Amino acid sequence: VGDNLPRLTALLQQAWERVDVVLISGGLGPTLDDLTREAVAHLVGEEMVEDPGARRMIEEYFHRRGVPMPPSNLRQAQRPRSALCLMNPYGTAPGLWLEKDGKMLAAMPGVPIEMKHLMEAEVLPRLEQARCARAAAGEPGMVLVSRVLKVAGIGESAMAEKIQDLLAGQTNPTIAPLAKRGEVWLRLSAKAPSEETAFALIRPLEEAIRSRLAGYIFGTDGEQLEEVVGRILTARGLTLGTAESCTGGLLSHRITGVPGASAYFLGGVVAYDNRIKEKILGVDKALLQEYGAVSPQVARAMAEGMRKYYGVDLALSTTGIAGPGGGTAKKPVGLVYLALAHPEGTIIREERFCWDRAENKIATAQAGLVMLWQYLEGVFACAGQEDC
Amino acid sequence: VGDNLPRLTALLQQAWERVDVVLISGGLGPTLDDLTREAVAHLVGEEMVEDPGARRMIEEYFHRRGVPMPPSNLRQAQRPRSALCLMNPYGTAPGLWLEKDGKMLAAMPGVPIEMKHLMEAEVLPRLEQARCARAAAGEPGMVLVSRVLKVAGIGESAMAEKIQDLLAGQTNPTIAPLAKRGEVWLRLSAKAPSEETAFALIRPLEEAIRSRLAGYIFGTDGEQLEEVVGRILTARGLTLGTAESCTGGLLSHRITGVPGASAYFLGGVVAYDNRIKEKILGVDKALLQEYGAVSPQVARAMAEGMRKYYGVDLALSTTGIAGPGGGTAKKPVGLVYLALAHPEGTIIREERFCWDRAENKIATAQAGLVMLWQYLEGVFACAGQEDC
Repeated sequence: VGDNLPRLTALLQQAWERVDVVLISGGLGPTLDDLTREAVAHLVGEEMVEDPGARRMIEEYFHRRGVPMPPSNLRQAQRPRSALCLMNPYGTAPGLWLEKDGKMLAAMPGVPIEMKHLMEAEVLPRLEQARCARAAAGEPGMVLVSRVLKVAGIGESAMAEKIQDLLAGQTNPTIAPLAKRGEVWLRLSAKAPSEETAFALIRPLEEAIRSRLAGYIFGTDGEQLEEVVGRILTARGLTLGTAESCTGGLLSHRITGVPGASAYFLGGVVAYDNRIKEKILGVDKALLQEYGAVSPQVARAMAEGMRKYYGVDLALSTTGIAGPGGGTAKKPVGLVYLALAHPEGTIIREERFCWDRAENKIATAQAGLVMLWQYLEGVFACAGQEDC
Repeated sequence: VGDNLPRLTALLQQAWERVDVVLISGGLGPTLDDLTREAVAHLVGEEMVEDPGARRMIEEYFHRRGVPMPPSNLRQAQRPRSALCLMNPYGTAPGLWLEKDGKMLAAMPGVPIEMKHLMEAEVLPRLEQARCARAAAGEPGMVLVSRVLKVAGIGESAMAEKIQDLLAGQTNPTIAPLAKRGEVWLRLSAKAPSEETAFALIRPLEEAIRSRLAGYIFGTDGEQLEEVVGRILTARGLTLGTAESCTGGLLSHRITGVPGASAYFLGGVVAYDNRIKEKILGVDKALLQEYGAVSPQVARAMAEGMRKYYGVDLALSTTGIAGPGGGTAKKPVGLVYLALAHPEGTIIREERFCWDRAENKIATAQAGLVMLWQYLEGVFACAGQEDC
């Protein structure tokens, strides 16, 4: 809906009449086209008042960041009289919560991190409270729960063939395969009168899938591959370094996205230019000239150089042609070599991706993490790789 | 809508009756829960046939990647008899295009890069063709065009105050400020009988905004800050290196996301551990002990070390506390120092962010690129910085 007060109010009115819970995101900013506060006030026919707690929150936000508060930000402390302001630790826009005539409305900021926080910390608990109150009043209803199994190292179709009979004809629980970048997620969902009963329906199915896909399921639900890898490294007291060419820092960015990564990740080199490959990683100039930077030989030298010179237990390297330029008939865009130098040797892998620059970088970083995870789990598939 | 054929077909039927153009995304995968093809066939009452071109496309996809094709992927070559398959260079799911009774339907894969490509290369041109045919038949209609001005180095409210009078009361063109991470986008939109007339309405407004926000508008429309920076570096023949601690590779990842970045970006060091800061960047151990890794002194030493030892013209460094752990009363989570070493000296900046780990990394990388852009443009704001 556009930034237009009558249209916004009309839409809210329509939603308010049709459903019990209205969730709004966006339109809580400081500028004059941010109209959600006004539209909610119109909806319930209330005047706007300044919320002292919200005003304090906004002033403190600017104080913490060490910049003066523009006066227009005070618009964000306004709320319809009977609404509650939901405090937002990540920005200057408080959310709104309003209950009237047995109906509920929540307005959250549009900025993803702010919306997510308010949804989880303020809105969902209030909705759950309302659900409990209804259940206590004799209206139980059904609960829908889900569990996601995260699969890597195998494509969607090949995975589906291993569990074809389980995928077919599931009704409760259901199995939904979701193709993600370099991963497949299997979402198992079940419906029952309670969470406990619903999860009990999922459990035997999960076990059946796990036995079919042993060596491919790296985590569940919100877990990310780099978190799982980090947990294993921490448990075994191993350190890690990276030597990146075509991924340009994405691999170390993902690894350092995990809180506490500094316990095992010592650092990395983004060796974009060959001079950096020689100077920091000690890659032999002759190797670069003979085989080219995108070669299994250079991938190996980068990983082994990182491991040797900086004293890490494991070193992961990437070199490839991300595109769109730089490809040749023999070495097309998307050709990538990865190497993992470990205490007993070096594993090398060739991949041929076929996307654009951004997606080729993403696929390469993912392949590196999958290779590292498979090595750590001892499930490394040896077909077609050197040295393993 | 769930993976349920009758429900999906009913929804399509409803859409088909209400509007002239139906766009679908998702449900074109190889598994049995991918039902879009079947639902479209039901909608128009047609049987499914195998499309030879689509079959060839799928077989070639697997051939190029060097992996065998699972037979289930052949489901993706099926189409309703009167539909066209839209070839997808990024995956195994062809799109569908269907025209019937003066109405149009396009089905695209759910994977973002695949959907985007098919939308731009196949669907939009066909819709534009239909629009032209209608215009030729005497039904002209109006065109809506937009131009986005991208602003950095100033907050949303402070920016809005500089153009308050322009923001107020715009109807055609309209101005919509959109707060992004470390940027504000100003979207100028105008409606007119032709594109040309619509852009002519936008032009004087754009000029007025540009003169108010001089030194803050870094680009327009789809341009990214790292692209603009890359263009300036290329034009001036300058080289760049990075020395990252808290951003963990994100800065070099963004810089290397630009095609052709290897012309000016030599490489970077992700110096997560102090040993790497000392060993590769030559940061003095005494400095680390006296001031700590998160300090203006170490930020400076990292940037100057990168510049000195690896022969780049400009070196950008980041050090800070990304969180959630590692903060103290004196050095809280979100405290960041950035340094830019250039031929005449070093610029240092302190920032205090207040988000979670992921967002603090993003904000720091953005601040680094803004600092670099402002230096290159000569608009660097000197207040509160050393050495400038």
